[in-house]
Amino acid sequence: MIETNGLPTTYRDPDLPESVTIYEVGPRDGLQNESATVPLETKVGFVERLGAAGLPIVEATSFVHPRWVPQLADAADLVARLDLGGARPYPVLVPNERGLDRALEAGVTHVAVFASATETFAARNLNSTYDAQFAMFEPVVTRAREAGVQVRAYLSMCFGDPWEGAVAPQRVVEAGARLLAMGAYELSLGDTIGVGTAQHTRVLIDAFGEAGIGTDRLAMHFHDTYGQALANAYAALRRGITTFDASAGGLGGCPYARSATGNLATEDLVWMLDGLGISHGVDLEALAATSAWMAGELGRPSPSAVVRALTS
Amino acid sequence: MIETNGLPTTYRDPDLPESVTIYEVGPRDGLQNESATVPLETKVGFVERLGAAGLPIVEATSFVHPRWVPQLADAADLVARLDLGGARPYPVLVPNERGLDRALEAGVTHVAVFASATETFAARNLNSTYDAQFAMFEPVVTRAREAGVQVRAYLSMCFGDPWEGAVAPQRVVEAGARLLAMGAYELSLGDTIGVGTAQHTRVLIDAFGEAGIGTDRLAMHFHDTYGQALANAYAALRRGITTFDASAGGLGGCPYARSATGNLATEDLVWMLDGLGISHGVDLEALAATSAWMAGELGRPSPSAVVRALTS
Repeated sequence: MIETNGLPTTYRDPDLPESVTIYEVGPRDGLQNESATVPLETKVGFVERLGAAGLPIVEATSFVHPRWVPQLADAADLVARLDLGGARPYPVLVPNERGLDRALEAGVTHVAVFASATETFAARNLNSTYDAQFAMFEPVVTRAREAGVQVRAYLSMCFGDPWEGAVAPQRVVEAGARLLAMGAYELSLGDTIGVGTAQHTRVLIDAFGEAGIGTDRLAMHFHDTYGQALANAYAALRRGITTFDASAGGLGGCPYARSATGNLATEDLVWMLDGLGISHGVDLEALAATSAWMAGELGRPSPSAVVRALTS
Repeated sequence: MIETNGLPTTYRDPDLPESVTIYEVGPRDGLQNESATVPLETKVGFVERLGAAGLPIVEATSFVHPRWVPQLADAADLVARLDLGGARPYPVLVPNERGLDRALEAGVTHVAVFASATETFAARNLNSTYDAQFAMFEPVVTRAREAGVQVRAYLSMCFGDPWEGAVAPQRVVEAGARLLAMGAYELSLGDTIGVGTAQHTRVLIDAFGEAGIGTDRLAMHFHDTYGQALANAYAALRRGITTFDASAGGLGGCPYARSATGNLATEDLVWMLDGLGISHGVDLEALAATSAWMAGELGRPSPSAVVRALTS
């Protein structure tokens, strides 16, 4: 049994939004780098429990070629088990047109593409170039929309790149604007290696605003590699961002980052939002119990501070 | 060898202070709950390396009775090894007049007292009552100041209490004002069980301001039990706080908190400050190397994300 003792105490800040959307990435971003194969039944249980805990949108898997991400080779089988006609979308990542074909065959309603703000990561992760990736994604987005499927765009390495170092906000805006112009409904700005800090976050959001791209089109995707994820989320919240990517139990992490620490933990974000009196629809106890269960399945403790504190 | 790849990228916020003081608590707050005895030589090395890494003030130990904290039974021997006449103060905690006597005999220049904002923690941790603790500390502060020794006051359970739940900011202000009125030069507001969130932090700082106690008299002492420490520090920084307690490598934690996670890690704070362009005087690589060494001495990985990322 989990007890929060009624804490945290809520203090509303009238300058902050009344509600935010948490875009749950645990089943896809969290599991994709797991070396030991997670059974299909466990994945189905994870996605369903996250939905039952109130997460409004849960990215379920990726239709990437199994050669690159063997862990998600069961994408079609997983999607077949989900309620795709309900109110809660279960987006899937599609790396290219072939992935889109498989996703459409599976009947999904939402897909996501994954682009890079830097040349080196486009080469290393996408086997492409910075410019060529847009030509690759253009037909994916166009065909998805023609099929009535909504498209989200991830942009990675928006703060720093392990090979190139600092990434200029203008470069990020240029790449992001191209993805939105293709027809993506939302752009998720990823601090893939977790080096970003609070003012950098503000400057990046402001750079989009100056280019006419408002916070209603943006989501923030922070990694906790250097412990900055939640502070950055708070800075982004103060700058008007209302959609945050997070991973249940803090699962996942970039294989190119120099640490085992991964995504912003959904529970730690929820704790902050509860303290700020910002609604999010998530049942923290059910979520933490789900992450504790998943940590047990994976055989190691959850990286989430809240999960450890509530379930230890 | 530690490489930061020139990251994080610095973005100055003109609304934030140009410099802050990091009050390092690792050798005292970080080690006091270690069950296995840390050798004196290791402690001396830890304190000296922290000083050499640029920490401007390092709380070295506690003159608490060894029955309560056996780990720090070597307090006098440790202090005898430190350069007490230098520019860098090495404060010690003193729980009562007997502790002050021992600290004065040892020749310290700075002491700290540790009070509670709540009735239950005053009983459990101090074996006193909320009101009686002030009578206990009054002669400690007075006699220390008569001896030319500066006194810092810690106030614990300033956000929530594991037995009492929510703690009202007015109660914290009332307790803090009494400690400052005795003659403490600084009041450190502790979120001892780590339940505080960003707006709660702002409200508490503002409550002191409304009582005529400015941010120049306050320090913030956050614990990362629920992952909130750095976000809260950022909120406090934006509210004018310029002194932050932190523990090298994130060592320590309240034995009454429901998790092994402890103090805000000095390295994670430094990473944020570097990103914000706020000077602090600390050499991050030397500090992380010190914490990695100490983690090895203690036989477990550092809880600090930055330490893990830079030294893994």
